[in-house]
Amino acid sequence: MEAIKLGILGMGTVASGLINIIEFNRNKVVNSLNKELAVSKVLVNNLDKERNVNLPKEVYTTDAYEVINDKDAEIIVELIGGIDPAYDYIKSALNNKKHVVTANKALIATHGEELESIAVKNGVKLMYEASVGGGIPILNTMKENLSANEFDSVFGIINGTTNYILTQMAENGLEYEEAVKEAQRLGFAEADPSSDVDGDDAAFKLSILAALAFGQRVKVEGIPKEGITKISKDDIANAKELGYNIKLLASGIKKDDKIELRVHPAFVPVDHPLSMVKNEFNAVFLKGNAVGEVMLYGKGAGSLPTGSAVLGDIMYIVKNMDKSDAGVVGSKKYRVENKAVKQYYIRMTVVDKLGVLGSIASLFGKNGVSLSSVVQRQKNGHDTVPLVFITHEAERKNIDAALEEISKSKVVSKIESIILVENFK
Amino acid sequence: MEAIKLGILGMGTVASGLINIIEFNRNKVVNSLNKELAVSKVLVNNLDKERNVNLPKEVYTTDAYEVINDKDAEIIVELIGGIDPAYDYIKSALNNKKHVVTANKALIATHGEELESIAVKNGVKLMYEASVGGGIPILNTMKENLSANEFDSVFGIINGTTNYILTQMAENGLEYEEAVKEAQRLGFAEADPSSDVDGDDAAFKLSILAALAFGQRVKVEGIPKEGITKISKDDIANAKELGYNIKLLASGIKKDDKIELRVHPAFVPVDHPLSMVKNEFNAVFLKGNAVGEVMLYGKGAGSLPTGSAVLGDIMYIVKNMDKSDAGVVGSKKYRVENKAVKQYYIRMTVVDKLGVLGSIASLFGKNGVSLSSVVQRQKNGHDTVPLVFITHEAERKNIDAALEEISKSKVVSKIESIILVENFK
Repeated sequence: MEAIKLGILGMGTVASGLINIIEFNRNKVVNSLNKELAVSKVLVNNLDKERNVNLPKEVYTTDAYEVINDKDAEIIVELIGGIDPAYDYIKSALNNKKHVVTANKALIATHGEELESIAVKNGVKLMYEASVGGGIPILNTMKENLSANEFDSVFGIINGTTNYILTQMAENGLEYEEAVKEAQRLGFAEADPSSDVDGDDAAFKLSILAALAFGQRVKVEGIPKEGITKISKDDIANAKELGYNIKLLASGIKKDDKIELRVHPAFVPVDHPLSMVKNEFNAVFLKGNAVGEVMLYGKGAGSLPTGSAVLGDIMYIVKNMDKSDAGVVGSKKYRVENKAVKQYYIRMTVVDKLGVLGSIASLFGKNGVSLSSVVQRQKNGHDTVPLVFITHEAERKNIDAALEEISKSKVVSKIESIILVENFK
Repeated sequence: MEAIKLGILGMGTVASGLINIIEFNRNKVVNSLNKELAVSKVLVNNLDKERNVNLPKEVYTTDAYEVINDKDAEIIVELIGGIDPAYDYIKSALNNKKHVVTANKALIATHGEELESIAVKNGVKLMYEASVGGGIPILNTMKENLSANEFDSVFGIINGTTNYILTQMAENGLEYEEAVKEAQRLGFAEADPSSDVDGDDAAFKLSILAALAFGQRVKVEGIPKEGITKISKDDIANAKELGYNIKLLASGIKKDDKIELRVHPAFVPVDHPLSMVKNEFNAVFLKGNAVGEVMLYGKGAGSLPTGSAVLGDIMYIVKNMDKSDAGVVGSKKYRVENKAVKQYYIRMTVVDKLGVLGSIASLFGKNGVSLSSVVQRQKNGHDTVPLVFITHEAERKNIDAALEEISKSKVVSKIESIILVENFK
C-alpha cells in the first residue's frame, strides 16, 4: 500500500499526540485513505531525549531543512509554535511544493494571508484547524459545511486557561491568585500565564476566526483586549446573583459595513449555551444568516484533541491532493470599529450616605447612560458600601466619560470593575 | 460564468429555504465556487400554487422524471421526504450519473447502504447532511474533520418537537398534553405528533449517526425506542430536585465488540452540556478516542437552517465533482446488544405503612438491584405516598424483574415511571 510521508517540525505535546493517534487508529486512517501515513523526518532540539512515541531513531534530526527538503515528505507538519523560525520553515516548505499543516495561531494570525497566497501559487494546501479551539472542528466547518452562510457574529470561549481559572473562582469560591495556582498545578496554566490571562492567545485565535467568518484579516494589534486579572470574587458573586457567568469572550460582531472585534471578560447569561462551557473546555458560538445559531464545543488543547485536529487536516490533504484549493481567505473590506454599544456591569465602592445613589445616577444620565438595575449591598462594617449597576445599552466611551466624572465625586471611593454584558442580540 | 444546474424534487419548507439562501447569499456562493448555481427543473404537486421563491414558472413540472432525466441537471436535490417514491427517484438519478443531495432521514436510514453503493458504482456523490440535526453540521464533520477518531459514543437530542415539549413542561410547569398543544400552535409539532413523540424520527436519525460513528448499519427495527408520552410533571419535578433534566436521548454506545443503540427519555445531569439544549434546538454529543468530548449544537429543523445544510452539501459536490468518493459507510460487524446497564429512576405509589420501604428495597436486592437514593414524598392526603428511587447501575432486565415482583406486592399501588439515568461515563 502506498504510504504518504510526513515531515514533522517539533516533537512536543501535540506532535506526540499525532504520532500516537496515527498508531492506535491505524485501521481507521488506512481504511479512510486507502493509504498509509508514515513519518520521514522529525525536527527535534535534542536527539537523545526519551520520547513516548514509537519512531525509529533515524527519523530524528536537529536540522529543520533536512525535514523541509526531504524528497519523500509530501506534507510538512509544523508544531514548534511561535513566529520565528516557523515562518521561514513554512514558507520554504510551501515553495518546495509541500502541503503544510500547522497548529500555529500566532503565525497564521500574523502571516496567514501571505502564506495562503504562497500555498495557492504553488498549488499546495495550507491547513490550520488546530490553531483555534484545539480539537474542536471549527475552522474547516466554517469553510466547508457552513459555507452557504454569511456570518453575523462569532463568540468564542477559546482560551482554556482563563476558562479554567474563572470556573474555579465561580464554583469553588477561589480568589484569582488561588485559581491561577490550581491551574498551574494541573498543567492548565504556564509558569508565566500572562499570554493567556491577558487575552493575547485569545486575540490570535479571534483574528483567525474573524478572517473566516467575515472574510477580513484583522491583525491582533487591531483587536482591543482585556484580560481576566482584575476579575474578583465579588464580581463573580454579583454576576451569579444577577443571572450571569463571567467568561473571557473573544467576540466578532458584524453590523452593516462594520465589524467589531474584541477580547474581554463578559457577563454571559446563565441560560446561554456558552455559560455551560466550563473548566478547560472551549466553544465557539456562531450566528449564520441561514443556519442561525450554531455552537461547537470541545477540548481546546491537549495532546490527543489537538492531535486529532492536525490529523484531520492531514487526512483531508491526502484525500484532496490533486485538487487545487479554493483560494485565499479574506478579501472583504469592512470598517473595523470599537464602539462596544452594550450593557455594562459596574461595581464601585461609595460612601454610605443619603443621596449618593441619586447623585451618581444623575452623572450617568448626564453622559447619556441610563441604568437598568442597581444593587446596593449591605453595609460592610465600614463607612463605605459596594454599589452595583447594570446599565442599559451605551457606547463604551460614554460609560468611560460617566465614570471619569463619577470617580471625581467625593462620595465615590473607588470604581472597582467595568464588565461588558453580552446578550448575544 | 459557468452555472451548475440543480434539479429539485419538491418545493416545501426546506426547498424554498434553499432557493432563498442561494439568492440572498449569491455573492458568497459564487465567490466560493467560482460558479453560479441555477435551477433547471422543480417537481411540484400543483403548478398553480403561489410560492415564496423567485423562480420562473417554466421550471415547475409535475413529472418527477422530467427533473431526474433533465440533461442539464448535474445535481438532483430530493426534498419530498418519505421512502416511496423518493427511493425510486434517487436510484434513477444516481444511475443517470447525477449527484444527489437529500434531507430524507427515513430513506437514508432504510436504504442508505444500497444507495451509497449505487452512487460509488456510478462515480457520483450522495450527500445527506440535512437528514440529521437540520442545520447542525454533524455528519460531514464526523466523516471529515473528525475522521482521525474512533467513536466510543454518540448521544443526541435530535428531535426538536419532543425537546420543545419537555422544555416547556420543565420551565413552565405544563402537563404533557398542554405542552403538545403549545408546540402545535407554534408549528413545532404536527397535528398528529406521534412520529416525533414516540421516538420514530429520532430512531431514523440515530441509525444514520451510528452508521457514521461505528461504521455499522442498524435498521430502525433494531433500535429499541420509547417516547415521551408517559413523562409526567411529577417526574420532571423529581428530576429537577435530584439535579437532572429529562431529555429524549438517542444514544449509541460502543463497548469492545458490542454496540447498544436506543431512543428513550433519560435523566441528564444539569451540568452536562446536553442539559442546556432547550426548546427546538438540537445537539449531538460525541466521544472520540482522540478528540475526547465534542458537542455540536444548533437548529434541528426549519427552512433556512435545513436549507443551509442542503446547500453546504451542494457546494461540497460542486467543489469536488471530479473527485471519486471515499466509498460506502458501514462495514464493521459489532454485536448489537440492549442490556442498558445504567442507573434508573423509578417512581411508584405505595401504601403509607410502616415497613413498606424495607420490603420494596429487599425485592430490589433479591433481583440484584441496589439503590443509590430514595426520596419519600410527603403524604398526599390519601392513604398512599409517592416513592422515588435512583438505583445503582443495573441491567434493565433486572430492573424489570424487580419491578415485576414489586408490582405484585399488596403495598404497591402503581409503578408510575422508569427512566434511565445517563451519566455519560
